[in-house]
Amino acid sequence: MHSPDERFTINARDGKARVGVLSTKKGPIETPFFMPVATKAAVKYLSSEDLEEIGAKAVISNSFILSLRPGVEIIKKTSNLGNFMNFPGINVTDSGGFQMYEKKFWIKTSEEGILFRNPFSGEKILLTPEKAMEIQLALQSEIAMCLDCMPLIENTKEEIAGAVEQTTLWAGRCKEHHEKLQKHLPQQQRQLLFGITQGGIHSDLRKKSIEDIRKLNFDGYSIGGLALGEPKEEEYKMIELQKSLLPEDKPLYLMGAGDPLELLEAIERGVDMFDSRFPTQNARRKTIFTSQGKVRIGNKKYATDQKPLDENCSCKVCKNHTRTYIRHLLMQEEPLGKHLATYHNLYYLNTLLEKAKEAIKKESFTTFKKQVAKAYEN
Amino acid sequence: MHSPDERFTINARDGKARVGVLSTKKGPIETPFFMPVATKAAVKYLSSEDLEEIGAKAVISNSFILSLRPGVEIIKKTSNLGNFMNFPGINVTDSGGFQMYEKKFWIKTSEEGILFRNPFSGEKILLTPEKAMEIQLALQSEIAMCLDCMPLIENTKEEIAGAVEQTTLWAGRCKEHHEKLQKHLPQQQRQLLFGITQGGIHSDLRKKSIEDIRKLNFDGYSIGGLALGEPKEEEYKMIELQKSLLPEDKPLYLMGAGDPLELLEAIERGVDMFDSRFPTQNARRKTIFTSQGKVRIGNKKYATDQKPLDENCSCKVCKNHTRTYIRHLLMQEEPLGKHLATYHNLYYLNTLLEKAKEAIKKESFTTFKKQVAKAYEN
Repeated sequence: MHSPDERFTINARDGKARVGVLSTKKGPIETPFFMPVATKAAVKYLSSEDLEEIGAKAVISNSFILSLRPGVEIIKKTSNLGNFMNFPGINVTDSGGFQMYEKKFWIKTSEEGILFRNPFSGEKILLTPEKAMEIQLALQSEIAMCLDCMPLIENTKEEIAGAVEQTTLWAGRCKEHHEKLQKHLPQQQRQLLFGITQGGIHSDLRKKSIEDIRKLNFDGYSIGGLALGEPKEEEYKMIELQKSLLPEDKPLYLMGAGDPLELLEAIERGVDMFDSRFPTQNARRKTIFTSQGKVRIGNKKYATDQKPLDENCSCKVCKNHTRTYIRHLLMQEEPLGKHLATYHNLYYLNTLLEKAKEAIKKESFTTFKKQVAKAYEN
Repeated sequence: MHSPDERFTINARDGKARVGVLSTKKGPIETPFFMPVATKAAVKYLSSEDLEEIGAKAVISNSFILSLRPGVEIIKKTSNLGNFMNFPGINVTDSGGFQMYEKKFWIKTSEEGILFRNPFSGEKILLTPEKAMEIQLALQSEIAMCLDCMPLIENTKEEIAGAVEQTTLWAGRCKEHHEKLQKHLPQQQRQLLFGITQGGIHSDLRKKSIEDIRKLNFDGYSIGGLALGEPKEEEYKMIELQKSLLPEDKPLYLMGAGDPLELLEAIERGVDMFDSRFPTQNARRKTIFTSQGKVRIGNKKYATDQKPLDENCSCKVCKNHTRTYIRHLLMQEEPLGKHLATYHNLYYLNTLLEKAKEAIKKESFTTFKKQVAKAYEN
């Protein structure tokens, strides 16, 4: 038995891979899990009813973008983000600063916070760590993220070192403000807060970031600024480093990872949570995840293919529709094509993680991963 | 009892309004009915499963556009259009010439047919009446339309007179070719063919067109070149004229009408079939059909409205989602917003026609229409 204050318990292990349960104010969720991206309170082309059918138990939204449109006040009128979307699962929010790093929005980053130009109104907005906490608490997501300072891919090591330092300072301010604002609530009703580490693929910087963030004692830890296209070996090395330095009893979240094989490699290294636009964006761009690997449905050879997207899939789309039809819809930019492909890709990924959990429970995860790898390495 | 060759039977009447059953090679369909537009073999933002839930028993597609992409051969590989879409209902096809009257596609119309520039490949294509029949027979829709010559709104009366004459000549060629190609089939397995009348709102031209087309003895008659934005009184006058001159035992189809009240006015005058992009396009443009009339959901007053789109609607969308959420999605151009609004508008329209049929059976159609009119005249 664990104390009621313990928010994360491990129920099965296979090597570093593990199945756990994370308790949130809305209820428990089994790990590892993948979160479809619902930036503006909707996964592109899918309803909350679709997500339920798919088995998606959590989604991640961008709290900063939601604070601009429709605005926190409007969502609060429906009580919270989960009710606004009518999503029965767990709502996770990111502080959202990272998406504003586009040149047209971003003005400057200082010790104080990130200064943006509001893309809707043109006015300047300063997103501070404190403000990021207030927004996420107002939305009442189950899990919130600290405001981090994400270095850009083109940044020098010195610049990344600066971002690491900034991220730590902001994490401290986030933690303090978040705690203060929730002091009055019993533990079980509190929003969880995750710390984010940075450091790119520089082991020394990443190590410093992990050690600094760990000291602040968060409910979970997120690996930021990774899964951005760096070599997979570098990515996995950083995950291993993070895993070795973080407490075993806290969930580990790899931000931005959504490639099927990448998820399994990360799970094997002890990661518990994922989010990414990869499966949904791939679907819209005609790349389908299947038990036989990726199918680029735009390829002419599928033009008269009467098979479902994946013969081994039991999702609604694979039961009802053919490759020839879905290919036609995607080629003609029919919205229905994007809907069907998105539904299938997320169903595939969710089912993959269900199977991964089964394999961990049976201590056969390595065999399972190798089977999937075979299809995806073709 | 009616002979097996009789394809249309009337089961209830209330004034000129009537409930009938049209027999097609795929099975019977009760009239009056409304067909969502599935130009490229998909209703925008809806799957065939959605259409089944909504209760849509028929859709109309553009056979000419489908012959360009994906091409008739590809659809034939899946046997036919209905199977390609996995739509269990009745597939109706239009010859599709009318959509090619955009300046960028249309080259010229001659006695021979309509010459287009293929928008995909740039090559010239001649759509003849015979070709239009061959395409629709290859797609195996249940109901086909003649190739008609649609005058443009800006045309003079003389030009419209020319279009009427051309339409009659083409109708004769369509009928002859269609009959020849289906001679080998038993009556019950044959595709139905509808003749289309033209003539704008000129009573003399419309009368001539109706009389000429009627002589060719089609399975049903379509009113073309109406419901284009002309004054409602003119539209209704033309419907009444058409009704008075056409055989009672054939279905009458008003092409392009989809406004709730317009449908009821037409049903009252004896129309049996409708199609239009009006409800789906309105949904995408934030106009919602409800029991209280049209709701322009973009209006700020709905920003925090916790009610469903229509409090008296029992569709999935109204059961699960609020105006505040759907408004947010539509304002942010989230595809889910368009899906939800489209689903509701078509459900509303289908339910309206179900109620209209009930009212006709109970001989209370006029009262029913007045109730709806009250909401829509606000």
